[in-house]
Amino acid sequence: MEKIYKVGGMTCQGCARSVENAIINALPEATVTVDLEKKQVTVTDINNDTLVAKAIEESGFDYEGVVS
Amino acid sequence: MEKIYKVGGMTCQGCARSVENAIINALPEATVTVDLEKKQVTVTDINNDTLVAKAIEESGFDYEGVVS
Repeated sequence: MEKIYKVGGMTCQGCARSVENAIINALPEATVTVDLEKKQVTVTDINNDTLVAKAIEESGFDYEGVVS
Repeated sequence: MEKIYKVGGMTCQGCARSVENAIINALPEATVTVDLEKKQVTVTDINNDTLVAKAIEESGFDYEGVVS
């Protein structure tokens, strides 16, 4: 399964890597990919919106909800 | 007191905020300022290179050592 989240505040590859790392640190079994242009993060194999949101916010970006 | 660290991989304000947040999460009593142009982070009131390095690396950036 795969969940897609909207994330605000990412503007470059450094931001993308930071969000990716934050989610993987919180959920080590997740596979994470960031689409900078769409401002979206895809998390595969894990379904935990709460921890994803917390990881994104704690790393300094804006969790803007589930896309699908 | 104040310590200055070199940090690689920060290219925009989103990166800077991410590094800042990571250090503050790890060391809530620290005051943190990021100089994007110099690729440096200043941490005031706390002297703990190990935790600063860990926070920077875990947030997806490169800890490159103490400047002063």
